Amino acid sequence: MQNPSIVLYAAYNAKLEDKGIPELIDSHDVLVRIIYVGVCGSDVHFWKHGGISKMVDPSTGIVMGHEASGTIASIGSSVTQVAVGDRVAIEPCAPCRFCGACKNGTYNLCRQMRFAAAPGPPDTQGTLSKYFRIAEDFVYKVDDGISLEEAVLVEPLSVAVHAVKLADVRPGETVVVMGSGTIGLLVGAVARQFGAHRIILVDILEKKLDFARGYLGVETFCADMKSTPEDDAEKLLKKFGLEEFGIDTVGGKVDTVIEASGVASSINMGIHLLRPGGKYVQTGVGKAKIEFPIVALSNKELMFRGCFRYGAGDYELAVKLITKGLVEVKPLISSVTPFEDATKAWDKTSRGEGIKNLIEGVKD
Amino acid sequence: MQNPSIVLYAAYNAKLEDKGIPELIDSHDVLVRIIYVGVCGSDVHFWKHGGISKMVDPSTGIVMGHEASGTIASIGSSVTQVAVGDRVAIEPCAPCRFCGACKNGTYNLCRQMRFAAAPGPPDTQGTLSKYFRIAEDFVYKVDDGISLEEAVLVEPLSVAVHAVKLADVRPGETVVVMGSGTIGLLVGAVARQFGAHRIILVDILEKKLDFARGYLGVETFCADMKSTPEDDAEKLLKKFGLEEFGIDTVGGKVDTVIEASGVASSINMGIHLLRPGGKYVQTGVGKAKIEFPIVALSNKELMFRGCFRYGAGDYELAVKLITKGLVEVKPLISSVTPFEDATKAWDKTSRGEGIKNLIEGVKD
Amino acid sequence: MQNPSIVLYAAYNAKLEDKGIPELIDSHDVLVRIIYVGVCGSDVHFWKHGGISKMVDPSTGIVMGHEASGTIASIGSSVTQVAVGDRVAIEPCAPCRFCGACKNGTYNLCRQMRFAAAPGPPDTQGTLSKYFRIAEDFVYKVDDGISLEEAVLVEPLSVAVHAVKLADVRPGETVVVMGSGTIGLLVGAVARQFGAHRIILVDILEKKLDFARGYLGVETFCADMKSTPEDDAEKLLKKFGLEEFGIDTVGGKVDTVIEASGVASSINMGIHLLRPGGKYVQTGVGKAKIEFPIVALSNKELMFRGCFRYGAGDYELAVKLITKGLVEVKPLISSVTPFEDATKAWDKTSRGEGIKNLIEGVKD
Amino acid sequence: MQNPSIVLYAAYNAKLEDKGIPELIDSHDVLVRIIYVGVCGSDVHFWKHGGISKMVDPSTGIVMGHEASGTIASIGSSVTQVAVGDRVAIEPCAPCRFCGACKNGTYNLCRQMRFAAAPGPPDTQGTLSKYFRIAEDFVYKVDDGISLEEAVLVEPLSVAVHAVKLADVRPGETVVVMGSGTIGLLVGAVARQFGAHRIILVDILEKKLDFARGYLGVETFCADMKSTPEDDAEKLLKKFGLEEFGIDTVGGKVDTVIEASGVASSINMGIHLLRPGGKYVQTGVGKAKIEFPIVALSNKELMFRGCFRYGAGDYELAVKLITKGLVEVKPLISSVTPFEDATKAWDKTSRGEGIKNLIEGVKD
Repeated sequence: MQNPSIVLYAAYNAKLEDKGIPELIDSHDVLVRIIYVGVCGSDVHFWKHGGISKMVDPSTGIVMGHEASGTIASIGSSVTQVAVGDRVAIEPCAPCRFCGACKNGTYNLCRQMRFAAAPGPPDTQGTLSKYFRIAEDFVYKVDDGISLEEAVLVEPLSVAVHAVKLADVRPGETVVVMGSGTIGLLVGAVARQFGAHRIILVDILEKKLDFARGYLGVETFCADMKSTPEDDAEKLLKKFGLEEFGIDTVGGKVDTVIEASGVASSINMGIHLLRPGGKYVQTGVGKAKIEFPIVALSNKELMFRGCFRYGAGDYELAVKLITKGLVEVKPLISSVTPFEDATKAWDKTSRGEGIKNLIEGVKD
Repeated sequence: MQNPSIVLYAAYNAKLEDKGIPELIDSHDVLVRIIYVGVCGSDVHFWKHGGISKMVDPSTGIVMGHEASGTIASIGSSVTQVAVGDRVAIEPCAPCRFCGACKNGTYNLCRQMRFAAAPGPPDTQGTLSKYFRIAEDFVYKVDDGISLEEAVLVEPLSVAVHAVKLADVRPGETVVVMGSGTIGLLVGAVARQFGAHRIILVDILEKKLDFARGYLGVETFCADMKSTPEDDAEKLLKKFGLEEFGIDTVGGKVDTVIEASGVASSINMGIHLLRPGGKYVQTGVGKAKIEFPIVALSNKELMFRGCFRYGAGDYELAVKLITKGLVEVKPLISSVTPFEDATKAWDKTSRGEGIKNLIEGVKD
Repeated sequence: MQNPSIVLYAAYNAKLEDKGIPELIDSHDVLVRIIYVGVCGSDVHFWKHGGISKMVDPSTGIVMGHEASGTIASIGSSVTQVAVGDRVAIEPCAPCRFCGACKNGTYNLCRQMRFAAAPGPPDTQGTLSKYFRIAEDFVYKVDDGISLEEAVLVEPLSVAVHAVKLADVRPGETVVVMGSGTIGLLVGAVARQFGAHRIILVDILEKKLDFARGYLGVETFCADMKSTPEDDAEKLLKKFGLEEFGIDTVGGKVDTVIEASGVASSINMGIHLLRPGGKYVQTGVGKAKIEFPIVALSNKELMFRGCFRYGAGDYELAVKLITKGLVEVKPLISSVTPFEDATKAWDKTSRGEGIKNLIEGVKD
Repeated sequence: MQNPSIVLYAAYNAKLEDKGIPELIDSHDVLVRIIYVGVCGSDVHFWKHGGISKMVDPSTGIVMGHEASGTIASIGSSVTQVAVGDRVAIEPCAPCRFCGACKNGTYNLCRQMRFAAAPGPPDTQGTLSKYFRIAEDFVYKVDDGISLEEAVLVEPLSVAVHAVKLADVRPGETVVVMGSGTIGLLVGAVARQFGAHRIILVDILEKKLDFARGYLGVETFCADMKSTPEDDAEKLLKKFGLEEFGIDTVGGKVDTVIEASGVASSINMGIHLLRPGGKYVQTGVGKAKIEFPIVALSNKELMFRGCFRYGAGDYELAVKLITKGLVEVKPLISSVTPFEDATKAWDKTSRGEGIKNLIEGVKD
């Protein structure tokens, strides 16, 4: 096979196939030899359900994978930013570059965006291949001191960078992160680099919070699934000496909440924690509609932001944070599965085993 | 009576009583002889339910009223900004001036705020009195060309100014206003002054939209109470040539939505109208919790802001807009009721009669 | 000749030559048949001096012109935003689209920018040709109601839009514009559309201020060339009732100054007018180094912004402002010169005749 | 003497006098027993010249001192934020709290500001006294682990915090600080806490840069007094691999410059270092007017900010940074002089001895 690829056709239906080596269409394109691919919660959702909001077309299938690292295999005639052999992290997207969103600095909101492994139209092939084509400005060289396993983590770290930027975390702040999976942990790590003085991670599983304390040295709070979000919020505020009441709603001295679980009770709890004028960013994705405490949001005049993937400057900063040793991603890597067994890595993640499971690129 | 006042003790229980003339406590205080007081939806809620989230203490009662105009009756020893006899609009609040919120430019979020006619602790007396005490920097002189009836409208106009500022409406934008009561109408008028090129008012009553078209010359859309918010959003977008799809959710070319009804279906419809990267401000207050399309907000990376009263610079701008004739408030004044019949003005507003009903200050 | 073009080789040395019809290189390129070209102060500087900071290479010369309108003559295979025959205003630039500046929403700061009629490397040909090649997203369709003469003015209007955006002019502000040439006049017009309540134009020529009053209905101040900038600032503040002193420097109640002359005394005067916390944008270009009141800037904590051309969204807004009749550009068009006599249009502008002089595109 | 104070009457004319214990005027006032006072460059300027822009009135004199720490000696009836005996850092100012600047979150720009040791009208007495009166919200409790010597340094640290905030330093940035005196050093320390990845301090004295390297671990550059600012800028950029040219002016990859010397050549060099779109904050104060490279600023579209003292939230953050051990101020304290010998501390600072020289509060 020239370009062995893992193609998903439907729930629990994936095949190893040859998709042919992609041609370099634009003179700024490069071809990356994929070395590692990460497994993300959305991969698991595709594996179990055949898609998220858009389903995979069973007649064509789609190459899976969007977290990846590799080496530059060939370059187009105009490429200047990388050279053949460079070791790179991949930002797996291709915005149109011609619309208002692209030109305004928000290419992540481009409506013609082609994002790896996203069902179309048009379908966009993912990174679970031997070779992957992308424009030169969406690969990022990594230092020799950084392994290509670590380079895969630039993707979720960029998600965290994007969320913390949208939250406009400022030095001295108290930040609460709801959910302590990969994204929650990395949000905590990035918030510290933005100067947060106090970071509290919330989860419903003590073992995940144990890891969080060891990994980040942060404070943690285990939410009680039987309480109301208002009660959980009050308990957290009391535990950490952050309570303060006013404006007719629960509310403490928390400056920023970044939600990384997508669960309704967690979203509600997060809103109740915030001080008047506080900021909230929703990075977790769960049910399309939830019960939501809108009057609390109004009375405290909160800033509530949606958050979609990552955009201008996020990968650059994520690479710098790893390079300078300011964020350590190695402790998050739990396993490496051979290319041919990619579905086993999805199963492993589905069972909640490990934090970040990787899949090896195909062997030559 | 020295200071006749309308005191509410409980639902449908209000009395005309003498509360005594307030003393000037601080050297920056002034005493205002009240000439007109406006009726707001929240007054009606108090009248029918005895409070909103905090109930009036039936043993003490509370003087009602928070939209008001008058003339300066006396001034404290340090007062320089106004003189006895000046005709003024009143911003009916007293922030602490010493906390972080006050010093950061967000005194509307001060937790020690004393706001007129708000049940405490401590209770704060309202403006439905002969005399009302307030600091000199919370009264605003109005030109001779502006009547004191119009000056009452500076209060709701400041609500609109605050909402449009938080929405960061920019020249050239398409803005949709949900709800065409007093606040919705004034939001439309202010949005135009912030440079919005296209303004669409939405309501469920055609007669209110008829008024809106005549008053503002805006476009309007009558929402269908039987449709889903998604359908209503699609219909509006099609009607005005604003449809554009993408990012897995309904969404058009609307830059900003300002919601002024507080109704769940209206809030949902507003979110579905917005383009990726769009902005939403919630100024209407309704049920504490509603069903909310959180994934649509995330996927479009919306900015969703709570909005609470008005703050630094809002009254100044509202007074300027009226003075320069850029916003006309006279057409919104529907009736004037004598002081003694204040409860009749509440009943009238409760029945949906008129847009802004006023109560005259007590006669000498 | 296939593509007659006006080529400048050195000061006072321009020739009419055939440069050949440009090929569409990228599939998003379009070819524009040029109908009108405007004369700008920088054209005059090139004509008299052979360049501004970079000189024209006399061995190659450069096609002049960067303000232009025309009709679409042909389109590349991927073009969707315009069609052959469309009447368009041209944003005469080609950023790289791959660097950080481009992707961050500031393509005007792209270091690989190719701007029309700018000496290189690489030289970029201007718009004073029969045909001009550009990407589809840098031409802007204009309504039938707008003439192609007016469409030329979209360029200077975009300069004004960019300056007013950088100044962050807000509703209710008092704005002073230094200089009442084309840019100063358009800055005044745009500032009003951003909600400025009071606009004062300053110049040293009464006849230009006469025009400004008629065109914009603004207030004006004729600066005295014999006074110090401090004195002139004080006189202006007194004349308009804007004086207020403090923080050890002259300073009034002016919120924003936009400087459109580039002259040192005007720059100094502008700074002295501002209130503490005021904003200043420098759009005029003059001597590279000037005497500058830096302590006044520090003590008043001013925001002082450089301003370079125009960027994301500026042309869109400029076109909208003309289309909706909010900014009238027709009164600024003073003359139309045949293509072959282009140098006469430069001479005319050099002598200070007219406001905006146009050159006709070559006849078939 | 009840309240021994150091009073300056004119250049080199200071006396130790009893000024009487200040009364608590407002119920929010507190009286501080002063324990340490810092010497600042402006004190030396007063000592040598009798004032800076406003001279001291020789008939009344003025109590000197504005950097200070102490303990709360008594409190007004409304005070809740501190108690008698609390150890505090002092923000030596009294804004009016009633003007637009105060209510907008910029009280440092209040035109009625009374700042310690600033000649009036009205004169405001400084902190070089046994007792000093101030409002409760302008004293800041410090932890037991922080000495009152260190607490004096909260003042210059707040200057640095204010400058770094105005510069909007963001994680990952390269920041150059011009000048390595107390403010320059602290700006470097604060910039790191705002996430700057690379910090370069510039001075003309190697021994100061030696200290900077030891204190902060930053990179340094010794500017050559014989070169032009353009040359010095190019040398620095080359030395650190930050060169990149374009837009017709010198310019590298520096994101932010904070100038802390006030010297013209340093200001010019700083501007030439910046990338297009870069940010510059002027915190040093020197000559009122200087030669300034305005076209470089325009062509690179720089943001250039004046910077005046400190404002909302700056002292809070400075105290937090010291408390959490994120900024160490102890190494900057060079000497402690007895109260009676205050003028000797000024002389010492005038001779360039030490970094921060302190004066002890008067002994009982």
